[in-house]
Amino acid sequence: MARPSRPLLSVPRIAEAALALVDAGGDFTMAALADSLGVRPSSLYNHLAGREEIVEAMRTLVLEQGAKELGSEAVRGPEEAVRLILRSYREAFARHPRIIPLVTSYTVSAPAVMRWYEELADQLTVLGIARDRLLDVITVLDSLVLGAALDLAAPDEVWDRRSTRSALLAAAIAASPPGRERADRAFELGLDLVLGGLVRLATTASAGSSRT
Amino acid sequence: MARPSRPLLSVPRIAEAALALVDAGGDFTMAALADSLGVRPSSLYNHLAGREEIVEAMRTLVLEQGAKELGSEAVRGPEEAVRLILRSYREAFARHPRIIPLVTSYTVSAPAVMRWYEELADQLTVLGIARDRLLDVITVLDSLVLGAALDLAAPDEVWDRRSTRSALLAAAIAASPPGRERADRAFELGLDLVLGGLVRLATTASAGSSRT
Repeated sequence: MARPSRPLLSVPRIAEAALALVDAGGDFTMAALADSLGVRPSSLYNHLAGREEIVEAMRTLVLEQGAKELGSEAVRGPEEAVRLILRSYREAFARHPRIIPLVTSYTVSAPAVMRWYEELADQLTVLGIARDRLLDVITVLDSLVLGAALDLAAPDEVWDRRSTRSALLAAAIAASPPGRERADRAFELGLDLVLGGLVRLATTASAGSSRT
Repeated sequence: MARPSRPLLSVPRIAEAALALVDAGGDFTMAALADSLGVRPSSLYNHLAGREEIVEAMRTLVLEQGAKELGSEAVRGPEEAVRLILRSYREAFARHPRIIPLVTSYTVSAPAVMRWYEELADQLTVLGIARDRLLDVITVLDSLVLGAALDLAAPDEVWDRRSTRSALLAAAIAASPPGRERADRAFELGLDLVLGGLVRLATTASAGSSRT
């Protein structure tokens, strides 16, 4: 009647173990993953077709952990909705910065991740972004957010002010606030710059189309 | 009179070997690095104090390779100068995407890398960015460019259009151009949005200060 002491293998459990390997060493192999789960590599293939599916399962796990942060705040309009999506996405990846070049090297196909981009596409369309610019805009936001996630995970001192001969740069580094205040302030400025530009892009496009 | 068959150990040679390990597996250890160079780990310490100095040497190597792309084009004004710096930085890191979370997890101190940020700080100041916003702006540009480097290194198909139930997103993915045209178009839009916003930020700040 004793239960098995080891939990049954599942896709989320495999993804968790793979993520732990990536967090520690920047990558995973099927052999190391099987070893960390105490199973043979062939057992993994009963649950997943291979490396690409494991990356998708990790991507889903990271975003689902981040999505919890979104909460149920009342959202005022599409611009605020886009900001909330991007802030949540950044928080999620900042906890696992080393997975970033892995996920960007595979095609996104996990349904739970696709839903994030679907929501982003919907909100950008409400904001007035034309269909033929939609993927470019999503790509810009993706780049900004992944870069900002890496910056949020960076050490407190991003630049060593003793290593520059520029009084201008040294003063800017010295004036920078400590901890995540530095990263948050820069990210919010990035959102203001890009979203301000997007609102103007949408306005220009609709002014252009009303003229035709 | 025979010359040694193995080139002498040097900081650039150690950085090249470390970069090859990171390109292949996302990270390096001192033991694997010594092994790939055919030396003992203790020999590495005759040239470098440890892991942090190797990361700085790799960061320098990646940027120096990218800097060759800058060429000697005539630069028209600070905005164009900023664009050229950022394009070159993106090209450099897109060739070695897996080093990105490693370099962002260490404080920048290499003089050759610092000079890039010094040039960026100078040009942004000419553009009219106030000193108290300078580091935030540099951080936004850094995030955008590192994210865009990862996007440039991404597979042709970033999103699998068969995996979305959104007709809007599927159509946007299907309409996306192939190869690096997709990544380049999005990056140039990102530069337009952010630099357009920065020019307005500079104008607003100077209008504000002239009123005081």
